[in-house]
Amino acid sequence: MKLLIVGGVAGGASAAARARRLSEDAEIVMLERGPDVSFANCGLPYYVGGEIAKREKLLVTTPERLRARFRIDVRTRSSVEAIDRRAKTVRVRNLATGAEYDESYDKLILAPGAAPIRPPLPGLELPGIFTLRNLEDVDRIKAAVDRGPGRAVVIGAGFIGLELVENFVRRGVPTTVVELQDQVLPPLDKEMTTPIVAALREKGVEVLLGQSAEAFEAGPEGIVVRLKSGESRTGGLVILGVGVRPENKLAVEAGLAVGPRGGIRVNAQMQTEDPDVYAVGDAVEVRDFMLGEPTQVPLAGPANRQGRIAADHIFGRQAAYRGTQATAVVGVFHLTAAATGASEKALRRANRPYRKIYVHPANHAGYYPGAEGMTLKVLFDPASGKLLGAQAVGGGGVDKRIDVLAVAIQAGLTVYALEEMELAYAPQYGSAKDPVNMAGFVAGGLLRGDHPQIDLEAVLGASEAERSFLLDVRGADEFAAGHIPGAVNIPVDDLRERLSEVPRDRKLAVYCQVGQRGYLATRILLQRGFDAANIGGGYKTYLLHRG
Amino acid sequence: MKLLIVGGVAGGASAAARARRLSEDAEIVMLERGPDVSFANCGLPYYVGGEIAKREKLLVTTPERLRARFRIDVRTRSSVEAIDRRAKTVRVRNLATGAEYDESYDKLILAPGAAPIRPPLPGLELPGIFTLRNLEDVDRIKAAVDRGPGRAVVIGAGFIGLELVENFVRRGVPTTVVELQDQVLPPLDKEMTTPIVAALREKGVEVLLGQSAEAFEAGPEGIVVRLKSGESRTGGLVILGVGVRPENKLAVEAGLAVGPRGGIRVNAQMQTEDPDVYAVGDAVEVRDFMLGEPTQVPLAGPANRQGRIAADHIFGRQAAYRGTQATAVVGVFHLTAAATGASEKALRRANRPYRKIYVHPANHAGYYPGAEGMTLKVLFDPASGKLLGAQAVGGGGVDKRIDVLAVAIQAGLTVYALEEMELAYAPQYGSAKDPVNMAGFVAGGLLRGDHPQIDLEAVLGASEAERSFLLDVRGADEFAAGHIPGAVNIPVDDLRERLSEVPRDRKLAVYCQVGQRGYLATRILLQRGFDAANIGGGYKTYLLHRG
Repeated sequence: MKLLIVGGVAGGASAAARARRLSEDAEIVMLERGPDVSFANCGLPYYVGGEIAKREKLLVTTPERLRARFRIDVRTRSSVEAIDRRAKTVRVRNLATGAEYDESYDKLILAPGAAPIRPPLPGLELPGIFTLRNLEDVDRIKAAVDRGPGRAVVIGAGFIGLELVENFVRRGVPTTVVELQDQVLPPLDKEMTTPIVAALREKGVEVLLGQSAEAFEAGPEGIVVRLKSGESRTGGLVILGVGVRPENKLAVEAGLAVGPRGGIRVNAQMQTEDPDVYAVGDAVEVRDFMLGEPTQVPLAGPANRQGRIAADHIFGRQAAYRGTQATAVVGVFHLTAAATGASEKALRRANRPYRKIYVHPANHAGYYPGAEGMTLKVLFDPASGKLLGAQAVGGGGVDKRIDVLAVAIQAGLTVYALEEMELAYAPQYGSAKDPVNMAGFVAGGLLRGDHPQIDLEAVLGASEAERSFLLDVRGADEFAAGHIPGAVNIPVDDLRERLSEVPRDRKLAVYCQVGQRGYLATRILLQRGFDAANIGGGYKTYLLHRG
Repeated sequence: MKLLIVGGVAGGASAAARARRLSEDAEIVMLERGPDVSFANCGLPYYVGGEIAKREKLLVTTPERLRARFRIDVRTRSSVEAIDRRAKTVRVRNLATGAEYDESYDKLILAPGAAPIRPPLPGLELPGIFTLRNLEDVDRIKAAVDRGPGRAVVIGAGFIGLELVENFVRRGVPTTVVELQDQVLPPLDKEMTTPIVAALREKGVEVLLGQSAEAFEAGPEGIVVRLKSGESRTGGLVILGVGVRPENKLAVEAGLAVGPRGGIRVNAQMQTEDPDVYAVGDAVEVRDFMLGEPTQVPLAGPANRQGRIAADHIFGRQAAYRGTQATAVVGVFHLTAAATGASEKALRRANRPYRKIYVHPANHAGYYPGAEGMTLKVLFDPASGKLLGAQAVGGGGVDKRIDVLAVAIQAGLTVYALEEMELAYAPQYGSAKDPVNMAGFVAGGLLRGDHPQIDLEAVLGASEAERSFLLDVRGADEFAAGHIPGAVNIPVDDLRERLSEVPRDRKLAVYCQVGQRGYLATRILLQRGFDAANIGGGYKTYLLHRG
């Protein structure tokens, strides 16, 4: 068995190591275009910021290690130019010497990754405009920061874009981030990103949403970034972080199918149409685990798993890729944002029925010092209660709750299972009723009918005639400090005595700060014959939506 | 409907709030013997240490709040002395006035909790000997610490015992902890507690294992604690932390069944034999979720859930308690120890077949600063791979992995599902291959036969004749720094060239530092016809077992 692997980072490196473990006799050749294999993509922004101080830390493994330990024939600076599927060979170009040669294979694994998109804008070739993919890129960006670029302009507020923004700020570089969409972190629902935008602005970052770059020009003080609005920003450093595109050229030229967004088509064993050619990682189209649709999600964990599965299948093991949940997390200053499964907008796009709830708990017992707040949003099927997706933003413990919900989604659990979860509680770590339990209680109450809830959008979007009576059940001081326009205030503790002030001929939309008093008030009103529903997540959710 | 609730802390308070949400018309009376309701049991040790600075922080809610918001008739300092099930009344004694009266009920919920065990030892009544259950106890203990007790002696190294030890050390009190068993934290398997003992000793705590107190005597420098060994320790403060006993007196005297360990017997709806009498929390016997056996686990999360379920059932909702997983976590200085599901010793006691694996990963990407190590042990069914239990000890992220595994256990997942988990990865939070994935790979490889593993106990416990050839595949420097006695060193990178040095007529037990190189070496040897197995978790696991 001769196995060729094109690409030596996440998916390719995992496939190579797994292949060797399964077969001592296989000949395994790894062809990598760059000078490095298996480097820490996800660490690159932190090397710019100095959090990761030493460049060698970014090298997860080396060609030497792969040779010595795994007897992989690692060839760096080796670009695969073409595949001859009939002859079962690839054309390799040695980038150091320019020499070309053919290399044969029994099985071929394509793990070429995805390349940062470079939108075809005037001035794109100016020095100081970078994308971030590998160590050579990060060296250039770091050098630009070291020189003192005046200002950095980051085009694109995705995960990598914001990680770079944070690290530029850490280095004292004034930074502007420009995002085409009306929110940062586009995989998340917009309201969940409100705290992230606030944190960026608090740190002095200029955040321009619904804005795009139209052209780049050389100016005396650096690159002038012309924006669609007509404005411009000038800086010595521009990052293009507008997404990635699967490296599918080899596959396409070899006649292999790709999806509408360019991902190489594979089956659950990571095989392309050609059973001798596999593809893994950021270059492939995957199945969305929740929606069942083809999608593309460049993530390290799935890439590694896919590499393993391809090797397993080649060497006769049972293995199947179950699809991608798109579990992701990002740190932005003191905040963490994370998600798993389908977002609300994805569900809406897919025309899938869903309900949603918000809770705003602390990450651990409030009586223990250092508790930090979070907002947790859970999406679920209105009929079965099956979990569809979750997002969280806040301080500590956000990653933990999203991991817990990622497992629940993997297992096909419902919101009712969240109520019954027995999670680890001591006051430094959680609460006797964990945020995930709380989410389960709220969602379960909604589905059982004990806790009717109305989405904020439905309240605010209703016509004048159909608008619910807005009842704010917080304390008078909280109400005075800010409330939803049009609301009337009756604190929950007084509600039973003041029911005569509540209209019986209108729908009532009740709210408090986070939803808990609103829940009790809703229960009181329902039992007294009112037509009441609670605004899920209360005033805090309103503030997130208002932005 | 008139509902009486005996006990106003976790389970009782949850039942009361839930009952009110379900019924505005019910009359709800809460009878609490102490002066407080719903206080933060789990925070008490941290108030002693000063981490929680203000006493009022420990009051989760107050009688006034329960009255105003939930219209609960809260009566503190009210001890229920007897239940007349035929008359459906309880006898209440007002501890402030001594007056007694009968209170009728339609439904009764018993949530009396569990009392610290006071072993019948001579001198037990001496001043300075305390148990810790409520705010009055913690006031006394804190006062003793404030006075400067010279030395504290903590009898019992369970969760609360060690939390107190940590807080005494924080207050500068020299501390001895005495534990009857040969390990601390008895719910965990012994080897998993080795790092905790090391951390305690590092902080100057004297840890006496396999030791017990026999008597207490008044001495000039404080209480003299006479130990079984004949030694003694003297200190101004002695804590009895040897466990709790269900408060079952009321139930027993009312003719209700209790289990062999004293827990009140209830069905899944938390009903005792008497359908009008429910019992919840630390006083009840629960079903062990993994083993199916009756057990007793005093934990706040389950108590809250049970209170909710009892109220649900009383007010006509479907609800059932699924049993207790015994998910628990404790912080001891910089370390965290946590567990969920069955321990190895519980499985052995129950005569249940199991296999186990150990991994020793970092909590997040090693290339990002601040990564901390952990040991994760996973127990599973050898036939199906179904998860049976998990334990972890280490720095950051231990609680997260145990929560992830708690959900997996709840969902009935197998070790194969761990391989496929898609958990949130960015370098500050995790790894592309999360510790839980790693555990899945190791366990899956074991069950599939690709990665035969041998438990350390089997290697070290074998007779001379049957002992495996011990092959250490770490580097020569690592071997020189310490190895399992009798091992021969061939680094994995050299193994392929040095196969002639490996015996073909003996079983081979291979190991490295954590198991990963040992896995590769085992794969090489198996494919070359050797009879090899990897020692799961490698030398690090050996060190944990050695203690």
